Amino acid sequence: MSELKEKSRLAFEASKVLALKSSSQKDAALLEMAKALRNSQEEILQANQKDLEENAHLPSALLDRLSLSPDRIEAMAKGLENVANLPDPIGKEIKMIKRPNGLKIRQVRVPIGVIGIIYEARPNVTSDAAALCLKAGNAVILRGGSEASNSNMAIGSVLKKALEKTEIPTDALQIIGDTDRIIVSELIKLREYVDLVIPRGGAGLIKFVTDNATVAVIETGVGNCHLYIDKDADLQMAKDILINSKCQRPGVCNSIETALVHEDVAAEFLPLIYKELKERGVLVKGCPYARQFVQELEEADYNDWSTEYLDLVLAIRVVESLDDALLHIARYSSKHSEAIVTNNYFSAKRFLEEVDAAAVYVNASTRFTDGGEFGLGAEIGISTQKLHARGPMGLEELTTVKYVIEGEGQIR
Amino acid sequence: MSELKEKSRLAFEASKVLALKSSSQKDAALLEMAKALRNSQEEILQANQKDLEENAHLPSALLDRLSLSPDRIEAMAKGLENVANLPDPIGKEIKMIKRPNGLKIRQVRVPIGVIGIIYEARPNVTSDAAALCLKAGNAVILRGGSEASNSNMAIGSVLKKALEKTEIPTDALQIIGDTDRIIVSELIKLREYVDLVIPRGGAGLIKFVTDNATVAVIETGVGNCHLYIDKDADLQMAKDILINSKCQRPGVCNSIETALVHEDVAAEFLPLIYKELKERGVLVKGCPYARQFVQELEEADYNDWSTEYLDLVLAIRVVESLDDALLHIARYSSKHSEAIVTNNYFSAKRFLEEVDAAAVYVNASTRFTDGGEFGLGAEIGISTQKLHARGPMGLEELTTVKYVIEGEGQIR
Repeated sequence: MSELKEKSRLAFEASKVLALKSSSQKDAALLEMAKALRNSQEEILQANQKDLEENAHLPSALLDRLSLSPDRIEAMAKGLENVANLPDPIGKEIKMIKRPNGLKIRQVRVPIGVIGIIYEARPNVTSDAAALCLKAGNAVILRGGSEASNSNMAIGSVLKKALEKTEIPTDALQIIGDTDRIIVSELIKLREYVDLVIPRGGAGLIKFVTDNATVAVIETGVGNCHLYIDKDADLQMAKDILINSKCQRPGVCNSIETALVHEDVAAEFLPLIYKELKERGVLVKGCPYARQFVQELEEADYNDWSTEYLDLVLAIRVVESLDDALLHIARYSSKHSEAIVTNNYFSAKRFLEEVDAAAVYVNASTRFTDGGEFGLGAEIGISTQKLHARGPMGLEELTTVKYVIEGEGQIR
Repeated sequence: MSELKEKSRLAFEASKVLALKSSSQKDAALLEMAKALRNSQEEILQANQKDLEENAHLPSALLDRLSLSPDRIEAMAKGLENVANLPDPIGKEIKMIKRPNGLKIRQVRVPIGVIGIIYEARPNVTSDAAALCLKAGNAVILRGGSEASNSNMAIGSVLKKALEKTEIPTDALQIIGDTDRIIVSELIKLREYVDLVIPRGGAGLIKFVTDNATVAVIETGVGNCHLYIDKDADLQMAKDILINSKCQRPGVCNSIETALVHEDVAAEFLPLIYKELKERGVLVKGCPYARQFVQELEEADYNDWSTEYLDLVLAIRVVESLDDALLHIARYSSKHSEAIVTNNYFSAKRFLEEVDAAAVYVNASTRFTDGGEFGLGAEIGISTQKLHARGPMGLEELTTVKYVIEGEGQIR
């Protein structure tokens, strides 16, 4: 049996035990894990230093994601405590139906079982994902990016040691140290032990997983998001929202990649934003029509419409109507977050109704698509698919249901 | 472009229009479809006659599923009317969060988009599935069993003609007449146009679909269900429930395949049920231990524990404890419906908590796992998976959600 299969089997067995634990047992474990992170700061930072040295060739943005500090470890510990404070979804009664024949039918929340998370080189995900999965009663198999493997193994070993002091089985948390990519192919086919796989990462990883998985998958985080500036937009508001949606944190999935601008306002709006975007170091590309308004725009071609830059790059397309904007979005959107700026009631209504995405906005920045910003608590990712979970995925989305039926001998 | 791909594209386009239709527009279409079925009885029965003649070699149980009659067509029409009378899930607000920054965040129900249904040779599914999908605002692609292809095409053509008189696009209903099995392989990979595939049929079809689909799948209807007779069971009640769960309709997924009997009651219970099962024509198999109590039992081997007979066959295993029963169920259950008969509070509690299945029963027949019996209305199948839907799938399970966010210029 491969290491992965053996660890998955252990997770599966542990999931049966974990599913029956009480909220206070799970919360006590999360607090123990938080304490352990704080007490093992040195050990974790040393492992992280090794990762940073081995990957010194990476671009600075990636190194920043990879690097830990006392503050970041403290944030991870706080994250564990926050999840301990969230209400436990397990056991909650969703429906109760008393039938004419006396059968009492209850639909209640139960854990999913074993969840595999495949993620990029961000060591904080190791504790964040573990916390959410365990709190929802699921065993979890974590397979982080190879660049962070020393950090992940160190964090995992600290967390597992902490679990030994609690009533939660240590096998409920499995860290896969093997950095071979073949592990991913194996994990996504382990239907015997794994109930769900959540890939967090680039479009390539997600396509690989959805194309090859036989285990159920929830796709997260690919965000080719658009902002449409309607002819009836308040252009000052449009500018603020555009700058915020693009520049506040360009490397995340809920930032925009393309702005669609109605032709009636292009002559006024494009020079206005071009200047500000340039000042902020954004590379601005435009369709031929847009370049009639601002000649300095780089040339955008059809590849740009499909690209999630995750960087200080913005593509601009000038459209003739709301219909054109809706068509562009239907064609290129990854169905994450889409926004319109308009003062027109009917344009807003049509946009909100017709755009098919996890989050549709009128007159606000797409940057709000986030569990915390929505007031839903910590999240494990933003689902861009339609089944099971759509938008920010919190504790509830890490559960399933079962029907519990109590009778006194009823037959049909 | 293949016929399937072209029809899927049409369904995709129609789904955008259908998603915006009102409840009354959808309900009017369902009523028109019901009327058309009644008015076209002759035409449908003739097509069905052709299917019956071409498949005269099939076992009588299958022919019975395949055959239509004036009564059955009337039942299909009534089914359409019943769905028209169900509340429309679309547009329903699930959550509303007003954030401190003034953002108004609403989570609302929206259609999934395009749903493909792959089903066996039961022509009534053609109208039942169409009704549920259309009412939930989804375009639907129906691919029924080849034995029923004349019936399905006739029903489909009647329903599509009825849609012409309504405000629902006829392209929202697509019937695939091509009976080549390659169609299934193609359909389950059409991510471009199809959002969800629901296979309804045997374990082989479902495994093929889950192994090969890149489109999201909801598995339905494989039911290797168990009844456990505890040492503290009321044996008369246990007998009634066992006979009902096995014999009332053995060909359906919520009937039981294996009875697990506690050794303390085996000497009394096994002869009791053996007699009654024999009288009802049930072939009864037993483990070696069970055969010590009733020598006439056929020999059951480990293959029996994994088999969904869907027939008048029952396997019996005598177990030493509730733990043994739970282990057997964990190992062999298809996670559909599982039941215990007991007077013991603690045995009931453990069974309900520890068994991982869509429906877990104490002291009632597994035959109740059904949307109608649960009081949930018509259903499209019983989901045996954990994601998105578990148990009877009605209108709500044929929808997804989106977040609609209204602001006045909010940025982060």
